[in-house]
Amino acid sequence: MKSICAVEGVDAAGIKEGKFGLALIRAGGTAAGVFTSNRVRAAPVEVMMDRMRRGTLDAVVVNSGCANAYTGERGYRDAVEMCGIAAGALDLDPASVGVASTGVIGRYLDLSLIRDQCGRVAPLLTRSAGAEDAAARAIMTTDTFPKHALVRTESFAVGGITKGSGMIAPNMGTMLAFLYTDAEVPAPVLHDILRQAARRSFNRVVVDGDTSTNDVALCTATGAAGRVDRDELARAVETVCRDLAVQIARDGEGATKLLAVTVRGAPDEDAAAEVARTVVASPLVKTAVYGEDPNWGRVVAAAGRAGVAFDPYAVSLSVGEDAGRTPLVLRGEIVADLAGAKAAMRGDTVAFDLDLAAGDGKATAWGCDLTEKYVEINGKYTT
Amino acid sequence: MKSICAVEGVDAAGIKEGKFGLALIRAGGTAAGVFTSNRVRAAPVEVMMDRMRRGTLDAVVVNSGCANAYTGERGYRDAVEMCGIAAGALDLDPASVGVASTGVIGRYLDLSLIRDQCGRVAPLLTRSAGAEDAAARAIMTTDTFPKHALVRTESFAVGGITKGSGMIAPNMGTMLAFLYTDAEVPAPVLHDILRQAARRSFNRVVVDGDTSTNDVALCTATGAAGRVDRDELARAVETVCRDLAVQIARDGEGATKLLAVTVRGAPDEDAAAEVARTVVASPLVKTAVYGEDPNWGRVVAAAGRAGVAFDPYAVSLSVGEDAGRTPLVLRGEIVADLAGAKAAMRGDTVAFDLDLAAGDGKATAWGCDLTEKYVEINGKYTT
Repeated sequence: MKSICAVEGVDAAGIKEGKFGLALIRAGGTAAGVFTSNRVRAAPVEVMMDRMRRGTLDAVVVNSGCANAYTGERGYRDAVEMCGIAAGALDLDPASVGVASTGVIGRYLDLSLIRDQCGRVAPLLTRSAGAEDAAARAIMTTDTFPKHALVRTESFAVGGITKGSGMIAPNMGTMLAFLYTDAEVPAPVLHDILRQAARRSFNRVVVDGDTSTNDVALCTATGAAGRVDRDELARAVETVCRDLAVQIARDGEGATKLLAVTVRGAPDEDAAAEVARTVVASPLVKTAVYGEDPNWGRVVAAAGRAGVAFDPYAVSLSVGEDAGRTPLVLRGEIVADLAGAKAAMRGDTVAFDLDLAAGDGKATAWGCDLTEKYVEINGKYTT
Repeated sequence: MKSICAVEGVDAAGIKEGKFGLALIRAGGTAAGVFTSNRVRAAPVEVMMDRMRRGTLDAVVVNSGCANAYTGERGYRDAVEMCGIAAGALDLDPASVGVASTGVIGRYLDLSLIRDQCGRVAPLLTRSAGAEDAAARAIMTTDTFPKHALVRTESFAVGGITKGSGMIAPNMGTMLAFLYTDAEVPAPVLHDILRQAARRSFNRVVVDGDTSTNDVALCTATGAAGRVDRDELARAVETVCRDLAVQIARDGEGATKLLAVTVRGAPDEDAAAEVARTVVASPLVKTAVYGEDPNWGRVVAAAGRAGVAFDPYAVSLSVGEDAGRTPLVLRGEIVADLAGAKAAMRGDTVAFDLDLAAGDGKATAWGCDLTEKYVEINGKYTT
């Protein structure tokens, strides 16, 4: 098992029928969530936020194909009803069942389909590699591969699945992540840990800069492994979130390369993250990465408009990972060996490292290249 | 004459030789400028900002092909030298000559080419339709057409030329705009007028969200027409700036359509502008415009992440201009007639009108669609 079912106390199941998928994950425990910052929030997000007030969950039900977003009061009632359907199938209190949706915006849920799928998925619930993969596949929309992550320590495990390839796709969108741990942890602590981890992972992924109406990251702690060291748990949750976030970036619509931008020497971590995100989101940087063009001027120019103070003639910039790293600018001096730099951009991961020489803040952001395929996927589709 | 030479007291000339162009514009008067907000500012921008302290100018010299950006102290000396060369050719005080550059970042100016071109351009200075067009063409980089604008009132004229098709092109970039008026106006007043006009025009154009290191908008007032009504002048300057800004958006790299997004009913004008800019910059909206897809969910979702408070279920949205306008959402109710909406997107201008029902603020932003051609222009080029 490579994600959620590796965590004691977690059963999963899912089916995907054409565009319409449904996943059930049963795991009782304390729970915390982080949600989209978009002011247009989908109905299931509103319901899930209500559920989080209790700080515990027994299960979640997730559908793909319809986002139940921009659907007003009827959408809210439908999301509550979807919890009720899942609760009935699992013999649980509806108030202890969370809900998430991803898919087309502005359409109502097909509750009879949800009811039908739920009835068929519930008997499949089990703890196995096949079950966690079925759940991960059930929530995919334009994703090209299911996304799993797992950290095991001596005393506990944290596993997660996610979906998303930008806010995206012909009208689809949404990043959903479901994490589980067997650590015993109070809901408010879990919330702090998850929020911090999301800030350093999901919030540093930019595929196209659009924030979905349905984004949710959820963590449930079953407690089966007993109490654990808080810092160790926080590190594990952050590692799982980062692993999932990088998979989302790599699976960005039309992407051929993962783009990883590390900014160091910023006034603080938030400033570093802001600069890294701005560079990763720049269409000019993204197209240069696609073309394997070591066009370092675009990286520096994008950094310059991020709203963070630094001296352009003090910065250092390199491209490539580890041993293959090639310097482009050294404390303001252009040292680019363009042939070497081009070679460093040839793989399926392009990493820039930018030192602003303005402090100790450091952060990495992830994205992907911008290709004709992205335009094709999003432009040629017709509602 | 359709731009700067329609203004009394303005002579122009220019040549374009392959990628390398040079324009001279001679016009004595009070002067004001607005400059890039990018922290990485090109040398000619630094020099021009120095020049503006005096509040008067006698001429400007502009080259295309080399941005003289990220060139350090040598770049600054070169920009000053470029002013000196132009001043010599025109028999003017070097401190009264402004300078601007556009082109590749990270390369030094070829001063012997500048000197040679300046020597050949200076004798051509004259006030004619051919001269203003030669100047407008000399400063083009990836622009596909020269950009002119003119407003004449009973008492004065305001004319301008500009270049820019985003921050961009294979390493190129930069919006440059040169406005002239024969109104008599003190430099500080001219500066207020220009800043306000730029805020409502150039600052509301988004081709790809990248801010150049070299952006400059400059206005010189020759005073030949005497004193004029301040509000009337402000309106004329704003109209010329908006006309030029829309031309820049329409000439966005790879663009097939102009995208105009008007947001009304915002808490104030700045909030309206922020929402409009966010929608215009959204890759999902831009690709939908390219595909003539009336995917209104993307417009509402982009508005929702602009950081402005509104009730998603109170908004109204329509697409199309004037008589061809088709409602999509009416006070939160989906009323989209998709066939009609698709028809409204068929022309070379796609206009969305979004009413947030949250106040009286109104603003329009301009951009263009995102096409495979944009990716090709920016990705397939190799440094």
